[in-house]
Amino acid sequence: MVETRLTLARIVSPHSVAVIGASDDVGKFGGRVIHYLIKHGFPGRLVPINPNRASIRGLPAFPSIGAAGQVDVAILAVPVAHLLRQVEECAAAGVGACIVITGKLADAGPEGAALEAQILAVARNAGMRLVGPNCLGIFNMTDRAMLSSSLVLEAAEVKAGGIGMVSQSGALMGTLVSIGLHHGAGFSRCISVGNQADLELCDFLEYLVEDPATRVIALYIEGLKDPARFGPLLRRARAAGKPVLCVKAGRSAAGAQAARSHTASLAGSYAAFAALCRAEGAVLCEDPAVMVQAADALDRLPRLPAPGMGLAVVASSGGSTVTTADMLPAAGLRLAEMGEATRAEMRRWMPESHVHLPLDTGSFDDGTSEAGLAACVRAFLADPDIGAVVVPMTTQPAMAARAALFPGLCREGGRPVLFVMTAAEVGNAARDALRQADFPFYDRVSDALGVLRALEAEAEGRDRAALPPPARPPGIGHPPRLPAGALTEAEAKALAAAYGIPVTRGILARSVEEAILAAEAIGYPVVLKGVSRAVVHKSDLGLVKLNLPNAAALRAAYAALPDIRLEGVLVQEMARGEAELILGARWEPGFGPMVLVGAGGVLVELLRDVQLMPAPLRPEDAAAMLRRLALWPVLDGVRGRPALDVRAAVEALVRLSWLAADLGPRLIEMDLNPLLLRAAGRGAVAVDARATIGGESP
Amino acid sequence: MVETRLTLARIVSPHSVAVIGASDDVGKFGGRVIHYLIKHGFPGRLVPINPNRASIRGLPAFPSIGAAGQVDVAILAVPVAHLLRQVEECAAAGVGACIVITGKLADAGPEGAALEAQILAVARNAGMRLVGPNCLGIFNMTDRAMLSSSLVLEAAEVKAGGIGMVSQSGALMGTLVSIGLHHGAGFSRCISVGNQADLELCDFLEYLVEDPATRVIALYIEGLKDPARFGPLLRRARAAGKPVLCVKAGRSAAGAQAARSHTASLAGSYAAFAALCRAEGAVLCEDPAVMVQAADALDRLPRLPAPGMGLAVVASSGGSTVTTADMLPAAGLRLAEMGEATRAEMRRWMPESHVHLPLDTGSFDDGTSEAGLAACVRAFLADPDIGAVVVPMTTQPAMAARAALFPGLCREGGRPVLFVMTAAEVGNAARDALRQADFPFYDRVSDALGVLRALEAEAEGRDRAALPPPARPPGIGHPPRLPAGALTEAEAKALAAAYGIPVTRGILARSVEEAILAAEAIGYPVVLKGVSRAVVHKSDLGLVKLNLPNAAALRAAYAALPDIRLEGVLVQEMARGEAELILGARWEPGFGPMVLVGAGGVLVELLRDVQLMPAPLRPEDAAAMLRRLALWPVLDGVRGRPALDVRAAVEALVRLSWLAADLGPRLIEMDLNPLLLRAAGRGAVAVDARATIGGESP
Repeated sequence: MVETRLTLARIVSPHSVAVIGASDDVGKFGGRVIHYLIKHGFPGRLVPINPNRASIRGLPAFPSIGAAGQVDVAILAVPVAHLLRQVEECAAAGVGACIVITGKLADAGPEGAALEAQILAVARNAGMRLVGPNCLGIFNMTDRAMLSSSLVLEAAEVKAGGIGMVSQSGALMGTLVSIGLHHGAGFSRCISVGNQADLELCDFLEYLVEDPATRVIALYIEGLKDPARFGPLLRRARAAGKPVLCVKAGRSAAGAQAARSHTASLAGSYAAFAALCRAEGAVLCEDPAVMVQAADALDRLPRLPAPGMGLAVVASSGGSTVTTADMLPAAGLRLAEMGEATRAEMRRWMPESHVHLPLDTGSFDDGTSEAGLAACVRAFLADPDIGAVVVPMTTQPAMAARAALFPGLCREGGRPVLFVMTAAEVGNAARDALRQADFPFYDRVSDALGVLRALEAEAEGRDRAALPPPARPPGIGHPPRLPAGALTEAEAKALAAAYGIPVTRGILARSVEEAILAAEAIGYPVVLKGVSRAVVHKSDLGLVKLNLPNAAALRAAYAALPDIRLEGVLVQEMARGEAELILGARWEPGFGPMVLVGAGGVLVELLRDVQLMPAPLRPEDAAAMLRRLALWPVLDGVRGRPALDVRAAVEALVRLSWLAADLGPRLIEMDLNPLLLRAAGRGAVAVDARATIGGESP
Repeated sequence: MVETRLTLARIVSPHSVAVIGASDDVGKFGGRVIHYLIKHGFPGRLVPINPNRASIRGLPAFPSIGAAGQVDVAILAVPVAHLLRQVEECAAAGVGACIVITGKLADAGPEGAALEAQILAVARNAGMRLVGPNCLGIFNMTDRAMLSSSLVLEAAEVKAGGIGMVSQSGALMGTLVSIGLHHGAGFSRCISVGNQADLELCDFLEYLVEDPATRVIALYIEGLKDPARFGPLLRRARAAGKPVLCVKAGRSAAGAQAARSHTASLAGSYAAFAALCRAEGAVLCEDPAVMVQAADALDRLPRLPAPGMGLAVVASSGGSTVTTADMLPAAGLRLAEMGEATRAEMRRWMPESHVHLPLDTGSFDDGTSEAGLAACVRAFLADPDIGAVVVPMTTQPAMAARAALFPGLCREGGRPVLFVMTAAEVGNAARDALRQADFPFYDRVSDALGVLRALEAEAEGRDRAALPPPARPPGIGHPPRLPAGALTEAEAKALAAAYGIPVTRGILARSVEEAILAAEAIGYPVVLKGVSRAVVHKSDLGLVKLNLPNAAALRAAYAALPDIRLEGVLVQEMARGEAELILGARWEPGFGPMVLVGAGGVLVELLRDVQLMPAPLRPEDAAAMLRRLALWPVLDGVRGRPALDVRAAVEALVRLSWLAADLGPRLIEMDLNPLLLRAAGRGAVAVDARATIGGESP
């Protein structure tokens, strides 16, 4: 490959920019691009290209790029029929990079894909980089280089700040910048990558990780071109102290299909992506509008002191504070348990009957006292269980003055204060006061709660980053030789046992007499299972006979096995437990080995109560996965039931994760289902196992 | 009681209004009240009361209310120390009603409550009505009577329209009106009821049901003074074709506590309130900001044709449509399954690969064609599975013109079109275009999805209203005589059996020999249960011995019963089933008899997967409750498992609901747990039952 002409930093911050098809008419793409460059004060050399005009917007125009002298970046928003020729001319003229706004390429079908490949080849041969096609370009707020036709640039001012963004949707990026600007957020660089023919999302993610102007990174992802790059970049961002937030398309089946047809990218497994984000401390959001507000909060507010803390809700309206408190549980948040010092402070201002959260300052003895409000918020921000304060302000007198108290209180307390201006236009003076103070606000309680959930995820990621790397547990033997294809239950269990995962004892038998000898060796009651490599769900075919108390029952069960070709029967101990888990492992193409744990048995299908993480795991990771299950209260001992052997479940999950890590892509998938979990101290045992192995035996 | 001087309609629409403590200073409450009355064009007689001024705002001022002539309504925002005297003067002067903005009465503790009682007595003796105290008054947009000091009245214009509101929080009401006005919504009358010393929420709800200017009713409720009035008023609203929406405080434990201390009202059981709303077709919202937008949608958009239909999502941004589609499942919504006619229309505009939902019009062959967009939306609005269309518009050229297409398409299609302007300020021209067209818009996809969920609840309520009233099932016997207090299992089962609910056969025995005789009569295997009126959770004490195969096992189990005083032992058939349900009934004070159904066994505690409804039920109601359970897929036959006997579960639930309705307040609570459900056609049976009876035997 030819050496590339330009670094990414120079593409985002070019010294000279040519606009192909520049125009005085802002109704045209080329007209808007040059208009926005001028309007937002592009400080470099600006070169309009238009064969029919001598000057555009007062700048000398050139008939072609070849006549324009050295140009770092050319912006092309030309009809698709002219695109190849224009790119060729740029390549010939020594342009460093083309930003191709033109669409209808790989996004429109095979014909467009062929053209995109041609253009890419032209660029690659010349060492010229491409952004797009089918993108909306780049907003560089730090250096005032608006290389884009996006209508969001109609805004009078696009504030510079710490948020860097990369997006596979240009229109969505424009919208998110608009939402951010409304809230007073500032941006460093925002890059729309479109079809990613050449430069892709991970290239710009890497650039933002290294970019000194960027403090927080927000990503809109439809599909990763090379998922293997993503995890290491998240680690580098974390090392650089830059939180990464993302919205990933394809959370729903319909969204996944639509993302595939848009920008022609494979959405990939959402669950695997989510697991990777959790493992690497990236914050996965569902709503893009919440993501940009959360990025702003991470840019301009203090971070949460630690994950898992509670919230204080305070305002001068009972209705507003109560409805906000009522919305917390569904948002995965909780009110704090206040400490005694905090209660003592509150008692100074209000009757004992009102000393609780949420705090309605209307109940203050002296009305909605400013001094009382400030004193209470100070107490909240020093309370050991209060991670953040939420202020859902309704219409009230002196809104702007009241709002203006919070930036100082927040700075002083060093914890986030989320100010919500719940009223619309009548709250604008309060909004302006906070913009003036460079302090974030929210327009909806639901937005603030979404942001808080993101802050919580960031704090969890920070916590996890402090842990040592996973360590291999002792006593892992050599995995047995593995045939390719579906393993029998006995083979799968032998594999699990080699990793120290307890499995039920079992003896393979070829006749009913062998089965009876096996049962005597194991001890009644036993389980009888028909063995066939061809059968995945043994129970569904009547191949499993449970709880056989004696030889007569065993004979009867043997005789009742269905009439299909069996490779033998497995006689097993009849194990019992208090709860059923499913443990699984699989190789996720692009993401690597993953393990999962969930509620087992019929609940697997019913609750979809499953946690997935990249392998290998630390014991802390495995324990955290178990705690996130809906089933957790059962494991922990619900309503007087005994706590179960969570340590044994953690141990099995960690060992399975090393099995997955060791086998790598050869382990297509493996399930231990169910793993029976007994009361604390009594262990766990896998009573069934399945696995599918790919490729060659090692 | 003295006859009251004024109807509610006249209080809301007074001919003459006195402002006690009127002032030229809008920084004071009395100054703001008179300012807003004048500013918004109050058409009646306006009387400032101020002993120190001859005129206020150019109007002749009176030294006292006694000097002011006949006055319909006096507004009091005076210090609490002067309140009693002012109310006495109003009563003496023949004022029809006082709106008391002054707070710190019952809301502030026992002293305030005593003063509130005094004021109420003064008013009652005179036949004068009270609104408040601790309220923010009344906005009457229909008749331009703004009887309030709320800052929301700073708005240049408060649009008249069909939304009537009653709120127990004045500040929240002001905020909701502000949000509504931003979105172009119009209001009829908004009433802040405060502490409800005299006139209460249900009084004004009744007024709005009858008010010709009100088409939709929105309520913010902290606690109902008289819950028994609420259900019948919801029925009257439905009969009048007026949807009722509410937010009820106390969904969370903390919210319930806070609501109690605010406005001094008991929050009551949130679950019972929610069940009543569902039964009567009222729409219960969680987020007040969503409620007001949903009320507006029900005022200005067509209704959903029927419940349970899918959605179409369409916009010119792939990112926006995909992320919107991804947000549907968590919001309880789904994309539609398009019919062939709709697909055929889409094929006219775009390649086959893009013919799916969500629709990205950027994939149109001719770009984002206006004709194509209109044609596709028309096809959507005629599709049998598309109930509504969501348009999440991002920044794009000609936003206002594009937005202006939708009011006409919506009117023409007769189904809701929810237009979301996802960008902030840069989308204001589109917002203005829609305000101009008197058409709702949303600023957040999450708001639009919340509104759609409310529209869905309204459609469900409409559907249910078309059903005939519940009919008593045949074969209900006389309930046995019931002792007060906790029933034994045998007594509770006899009660259930009298209503035709199948229960396990059981024989009470007093010795092991009697128990063996009983087991022989019933047939092995049997269950042995120790009977004690003092024990609620028999299993926890080891009083239940399952699956005893023969007399020896029965003897051993009998001997192993714990050493506590027993009233005997119950020998029962060992019943088996495929799933466990819990059925329950209770008397809910204020709301009446309720029945519940949920996942039984350990899942009760774990999933809190429970549905509650007022008794008695129709079979359709019982079936709908089962379908709403998380457990439903198990009942319906998940992954190749057999479907269970849902008809038997419906039958048992309906019969239990009649039991609850017949016993009324005597039935404190009753549980059938578990009710074992067998495969379809094989019935159900309650294997355990508990009940607590209050008061006298009939």
